[in-house]
Amino acid sequence: MLMTLQYFFELAGSALFAISGALLANDKQNADWFGVTFVGFITSLGGGTVRDVLLGAYPLGWVADVHIFLAILSGIVLTSLFYDLLQKYRHNLFLFETLGIAMFTIIGTEKALQCDVNPLIAAVLGMFSAVMGGVLRDVLTNDIPVLFRKEIYASACMAGALLYVLLLYFECPRNISLPVSMALIALIRIASVRWRLSLPRFRR
Amino acid sequence: MLMTLQYFFELAGSALFAISGALLANDKQNADWFGVTFVGFITSLGGGTVRDVLLGAYPLGWVADVHIFLAILSGIVLTSLFYDLLQKYRHNLFLFETLGIAMFTIIGTEKALQCDVNPLIAAVLGMFSAVMGGVLRDVLTNDIPVLFRKEIYASACMAGALLYVLLLYFECPRNISLPVSMALIALIRIASVRWRLSLPRFRR
Amino acid sequence: MLMTLQYFFELAGSALFAISGALLANDKQNADWFGVTFVGFITSLGGGTVRDVLLGAYPLGWVADVHIFLAILSGIVLTSLFYDLLQKYRHNLFLFETLGIAMFTIIGTEKALQCDVNPLIAAVLGMFSAVMGGVLRDVLTNDIPVLFRKEIYASACMAGALLYVLLLYFECPRNISLPVSMALIALIRIASVRWRLSLPRFRR
Repeated sequence: MLMTLQYFFELAGSALFAISGALLANDKQNADWFGVTFVGFITSLGGGTVRDVLLGAYPLGWVADVHIFLAILSGIVLTSLFYDLLQKYRHNLFLFETLGIAMFTIIGTEKALQCDVNPLIAAVLGMFSAVMGGVLRDVLTNDIPVLFRKEIYASACMAGALLYVLLLYFECPRNISLPVSMALIALIRIASVRWRLSLPRFRR
Repeated sequence: MLMTLQYFFELAGSALFAISGALLANDKQNADWFGVTFVGFITSLGGGTVRDVLLGAYPLGWVADVHIFLAILSGIVLTSLFYDLLQKYRHNLFLFETLGIAMFTIIGTEKALQCDVNPLIAAVLGMFSAVMGGVLRDVLTNDIPVLFRKEIYASACMAGALLYVLLLYFECPRNISLPVSMALIALIRIASVRWRLSLPRFRR
Repeated sequence: MLMTLQYFFELAGSALFAISGALLANDKQNADWFGVTFVGFITSLGGGTVRDVLLGAYPLGWVADVHIFLAILSGIVLTSLFYDLLQKYRHNLFLFETLGIAMFTIIGTEKALQCDVNPLIAAVLGMFSAVMGGVLRDVLTNDIPVLFRKEIYASACMAGALLYVLLLYFECPRNISLPVSMALIALIRIASVRWRLSLPRFRR
């Protein structure tokens, strides 16, 4: 039952990522509907795909289960139908996006741990699950990579993933460690956008 | 015998893709012969490589069979020797390229189907086989991605791949479904270039 | 014992690649310490990762062995602590980098040969081991790809890798073929920088 719920959230998260990818791609010059759809898919599937290819965890989720594909397609059709509405409430969308990012990070970390990798590596692969879709989107659309924008994004995911493997190390049960780690990611991200926080430069 | 013929066409198609990749890369500033050769290879091998990595279908074709590599190398040597001629007849090259794209799409779809994936996913992976080489080329050369140019390209491949899996569903024999689907891709692409057709924007 | 020595050099090489990646990324506008660290990791791990994903050689080195990850992290911490010193002696760093590139190429070629691929393909994958990290770094940071800069880099690696498989074909023992091939790479690269050599254009 809980697994069914998690599966539903994963599908919803995939659709949501596709919506935000499509909204961003649509701002690009010359982007026709096929290009926008393509970028929506890459944004949504990219992170999990990079994680699983690095793990050699075949078959990839979306290759094996066509429902993920259909969920993304629905997200893109919805974006097309309710474009003005989604643009208007993009601010509210941000909240759901943040929850999606948090979920993808922790579930990605879990998937890596199931492949018996070191917890530190698992945390990195969890972070990859949430950010690599956006990185691929930026690379494909020739945009400034999300990693080099001021907002705190990937580092919030990394912090949450590290907290999750740490809690796991201290044998904290999953129904505590999962929401707590997700909350950390969401809080860092929301706080950083709210108060325009950014990480310091490496060295100037 | 038929398989031998298909193998020959695949080698010829690989060489052709490398030629068009090398011609494009050579327009780039500072591109030396090594860079041009490298981009020719990526253009030719990229699509099939992305498909097979996503499928986990190892070993990759060009890693297992050195003849593909040698066919591409021949294509690039030919480009160097007959550069002026190829530039002059680039228009005619377009026709062969289009046939190559159509062939790569349908054969790619078939390869995905052999890995027991859903027909819809197989069609996407077939389209990837034909377009991802060009996408990687554009990403490597920092060009406007082919997906965001006006011409209809990836969507033509997608249409042909979908037709192919549809015909397969209705148990249409391969010696009909293969040429018909390839023809659809070629016709859409030729028509779109001939009459400067382009897909509508997603939303403005 | 020799294997232990090689392992030590591989860790040192990984740290060194991360240092040079971090130094380059730090020049980028807006790069915070997380972005710089991320790029340092990609630069260091990218080449071997691309090679192993193309070979289907799972698990990937850094996924299976956390020490590689820790070596890279140390390199980045050192970069942060001794930034001014490293910038001042960047010229001397170049020598170590060149040795690192040479080592990664030949060891990469060996790893591909262990997967029973054609020597020509193994040489290409060896070259990939040394250059793909830099290519990914340039793609992620939206920079002019290293392949299109004037300096001789990837072609030096390719020459060394080809020499290595050639020496192997003539049954030259490893303790001769390894240093000789590495020396060829280092010499070509040093000479090309020293006398500002560059490869001719493909065609003008």
